[in-house]
Amino acid sequence: MRNVLGIGLVLAALAALPCHGQDAADNNTPPSVQALRAHPALTPNSMLASAPASAWRTLDPDNTLYVTLPQGRVLIELAPQFAPRYVANIKKLVRQGFFNGLPIFRVQDDAVAEWGDPTGRKSVGMARRRVPAEFERPLRDLPFTALPDPDTYAPQVGFSDGFPAARDPVFGRAWLANCYGMVGAARGNNVDSGGGTALYAIIGGPQRQWDRNTTMVGRVVEGMPLLSTLPRGTGPLGVYMDRHRWIRIESVHVAADLPPAQRVVLEELRTDSPTFTQYVESLRNRRGPWFKVPAGRISVCSIPIPVRQKANQ
Amino acid sequence: MRNVLGIGLVLAALAALPCHGQDAADNNTPPSVQALRAHPALTPNSMLASAPASAWRTLDPDNTLYVTLPQGRVLIELAPQFAPRYVANIKKLVRQGFFNGLPIFRVQDDAVAEWGDPTGRKSVGMARRRVPAEFERPLRDLPFTALPDPDTYAPQVGFSDGFPAARDPVFGRAWLANCYGMVGAARGNNVDSGGGTALYAIIGGPQRQWDRNTTMVGRVVEGMPLLSTLPRGTGPLGVYMDRHRWIRIESVHVAADLPPAQRVVLEELRTDSPTFTQYVESLRNRRGPWFKVPAGRISVCSIPIPVRQKANQ
Repeated sequence: MRNVLGIGLVLAALAALPCHGQDAADNNTPPSVQALRAHPALTPNSMLASAPASAWRTLDPDNTLYVTLPQGRVLIELAPQFAPRYVANIKKLVRQGFFNGLPIFRVQDDAVAEWGDPTGRKSVGMARRRVPAEFERPLRDLPFTALPDPDTYAPQVGFSDGFPAARDPVFGRAWLANCYGMVGAARGNNVDSGGGTALYAIIGGPQRQWDRNTTMVGRVVEGMPLLSTLPRGTGPLGVYMDRHRWIRIESVHVAADLPPAQRVVLEELRTDSPTFTQYVESLRNRRGPWFKVPAGRISVCSIPIPVRQKANQ
Repeated sequence: MRNVLGIGLVLAALAALPCHGQDAADNNTPPSVQALRAHPALTPNSMLASAPASAWRTLDPDNTLYVTLPQGRVLIELAPQFAPRYVANIKKLVRQGFFNGLPIFRVQDDAVAEWGDPTGRKSVGMARRRVPAEFERPLRDLPFTALPDPDTYAPQVGFSDGFPAARDPVFGRAWLANCYGMVGAARGNNVDSGGGTALYAIIGGPQRQWDRNTTMVGRVVEGMPLLSTLPRGTGPLGVYMDRHRWIRIESVHVAADLPPAQRVVLEELRTDSPTFTQYVESLRNRRGPWFKVPAGRISVCSIPIPVRQKANQ
């Protein structure tokens, strides 16, 4: 089983421990990291390893984008459940080659990386330049695995089809949350002025103040460090003032359009599975020798959603 | 007035907007960023600009560290109010040159950068290798500007002497919060096994599950992008597996020990000032032409604390 990706994400799921060695070590691994690795049964990892096949879903290649940068490839799962018109428009743009050669032109520390057409003037061909806002949806249309803990911003938070989300039962609305790795459509001051020709990914702390102010279109499922380590822009809001520093996107493809040999088949833990609920519970109450005061709580933006390469490809 | 730093932080305080241009632009600044800049009266920036001198405090050079990396300088304000023994020990280590030449040896995406002695074997001289944990303090000893909004992790959150903090009035305890930019002392499994010989900074989303599990010793007040853009480690928990990739710390100094010409005098907005309360309120309810649904809430880790260079140096 090729599980290189899984290893990285499962380690993320362990929740990094700020640890360092007290004892002698013979290699580069600090002793406390060694200690952690010696207690796999005490980590959320073990329940992922033993999860039934039914707890995983294969990402739909027709709703997965491959963004190829000079540094490597970023994979984005689109969220047509929440933004059907934006997702359809973005796929039209992608299939016309709209993003090929366009830049990452803004990287703001603890905030976002933004890419696409910075001028709003590049031809959109058969696609649309502007699409009416899809900030929220009727919650009756959407599955929802609620978290038991209070949230600063919304009456209720949880996960819907693999995305961090919030909802308001009184008003019957649901929306995606601006957590790390989430992708949204940039817009001007008019709410209907976006369309997906410029997109942003959250590369730092959650930007929940944007919830219901932008149309969220998906989530980065692989390659976040390629975005989070980009040089920060020196202009206002992190704009790269020098066009020579723009990072050019080599290509963007819908995974389904690529030959199988160029694809990676990813599985994501179903957020409506019993395993996911157990996993969340293990993150709410961390065990193992390191944690002395388990929080007993968790924020919707602090739950990495496990993704792995599918076995036997 | 030298205010290069202030400009950067004030822009952070504006809360980045995911915006892009709809109209023609003649330079590299997307039109919507231009629009934002044209409405300064609508941003938190204006109240900072008009704040009285009494709303600012000068950082104490005896509790400010300058960490010089090959890429530049990171400034850390120490928090003796919360961790008096750790801060005293760290300053002893610094004044002996303990950190000079030691590496940044772990960088985990959306989590931490960690530096110092990875082996726990370097001589600590007159300092101590281990210091009893200072996870929390009696809240009666500490000022506290409470936020009005609910928090996922603690009964109450707010700011104490310029640091994001939480407290539990029933148990009479207060502690620092693992928000972006906060600095803590790494430890092994034993709660008293840290001492400041290895330190970490939060470079991604908040790691609130560590609250009351590590001794927090301060906050990065300048230079975060030098840490947040570092390459992520490929080993467990982001350890740099190849020692050749370690980033060597050139030097660490207590600001008070440097000649004035090598220092920068920083002012931070007092978190117990009326201006700070207004500033927080403006972030809770964003105005201006872009925001359509102001959150009316804010999380303790989503409030950048304004820092600027002091005028007339």
